[in-house]
Amino acid sequence: MSKNNIEKLIYLFSKIPGLGPRSSRRAVLYLLKNKETMMFSLAELIKNTAESVKNCINCYNIDSSSICSICSDKNRESNIICVVESVADLWAIERGKIYKGTYHVLGGVLSAIDNIAPQDLNIDQLIERVKNQKITEIIFATNANIEGQTTAFYITEKLKDYDVKISQLAHGIPIGGELDYLDEGTLNAALKSRHLF
Amino acid sequence: MSKNNIEKLIYLFSKIPGLGPRSSRRAVLYLLKNKETMMFSLAELIKNTAESVKNCINCYNIDSSSICSICSDKNRESNIICVVESVADLWAIERGKIYKGTYHVLGGVLSAIDNIAPQDLNIDQLIERVKNQKITEIIFATNANIEGQTTAFYITEKLKDYDVKISQLAHGIPIGGELDYLDEGTLNAALKSRHLF
Repeated sequence: MSKNNIEKLIYLFSKIPGLGPRSSRRAVLYLLKNKETMMFSLAELIKNTAESVKNCINCYNIDSSSICSICSDKNRESNIICVVESVADLWAIERGKIYKGTYHVLGGVLSAIDNIAPQDLNIDQLIERVKNQKITEIIFATNANIEGQTTAFYITEKLKDYDVKISQLAHGIPIGGELDYLDEGTLNAALKSRHLF
Repeated sequence: MSKNNIEKLIYLFSKIPGLGPRSSRRAVLYLLKNKETMMFSLAELIKNTAESVKNCINCYNIDSSSICSICSDKNRESNIICVVESVADLWAIERGKIYKGTYHVLGGVLSAIDNIAPQDLNIDQLIERVKNQKITEIIFATNANIEGQTTAFYITEKLKDYDVKISQLAHGIPIGGELDYLDEGTLNAALKSRHLF
C-alpha cells in the first residue's frame, strides 16, 4: 500500500525498451538513492521536454520548434534529402558529423506483416518536397533489410518523373569487421561494390 | 540548441546504472513516441515519489512513511530481524514471500578498499534494536563474499553479550543450478552443509 509509488515507478520504467523488471528496480533504487540530484531534475526535464517537443513540419524530425534545427540551418544543403526510417537513424547519421544535407523521416517502413501501407508513412510529404523545394538528390538510408529496401524501391518508383538523383548508402564490410563473422549477403554486396585501390 | 532538452534527458538517463548512451537514446525516443501515455505520468510519478519517500527510522527500509509498511505490519514477527546490505536485497527476499519477520538495512558493507567503517553503516542502530525490542533471532543475509561475511562477523562479535540467536542464509547449489558450472567454493559449501534425504 505505502510502497505503491515506488512499485508504480518500477512498472513504468519496465515498459521502456531495454529495461526489464530487474533493471527497472535497479534504476529506481539508484534514483531513490540520488533523490536530490536526480529525481527532481529528471521529473522536471521529462515534463518540460514532453511539453516542448514537436515534429518538424518539413522533415518530421523531433525538435522543440515546428521547423527543426536542421531544416532551419542556413549552412546545410537544403537541396539534398537523406531519407531515414526513424529519428534514431537521423541521430545516428548526425553523430557521423559528415552529412551536411537535410533529412526526411518516414516514420517506419512498408510492411505487409505489420500492415503498414504507404499512407501510414511520410511518403507523400517527401514527394511534395521534391516537387516544391528544388531538391537535386535523394539519398536512401533505410535499413539494409527487405522492408527498408522495398520502401526505398517504392519511393524511387514514385519519383521517376522528377529530375532528381537517387542514391543509397553503400553496403559492405563494416569498419573493423572481420570477414569470418560476416554473413554471405554482406560479403557478396562488398564484393560486387569493390573499388580500385 | 533547440535539441537541448532531449540531449539533457538522454544524458540524465545515461547516468542510471544499466543504461549506457545507446540504451538511453532508445529509452528517450520511446518516451518521445509515447508522450501522452508515458512522459507526463512518469514526470509526475518521479516527482511525487521523490517528495514522499523516506527511510524507515526503525529498519532503514525505503517507504513513504517514517515507519515502513513491514515494521508497522502487526502480522509480521517483530522479534526476528533479517540483516541485509541494501533495500534491493530486502526486496529480493520479500519476492520469495516466505519470510515473515522484519529487516534491518545496513546501507552497505564494511570495506577497507572503499573506506567504509562501522560508523558509516546502520550497525549501532541494529544493536539498539536488539537491546530494546526483545529480538530473539538475527538472520544475516549479507552477500556471500568477503565484505558481506566480514560485516556479518563484525556484528556477531558486537552481539555476543546479548541473548539472541544468530543465523545466516544457507550456502549451496542454487535451485536449477548445474554442478559443472558452479565454482568450487559453492560446491564445497554445499558438500559441507549436506543433509540427509
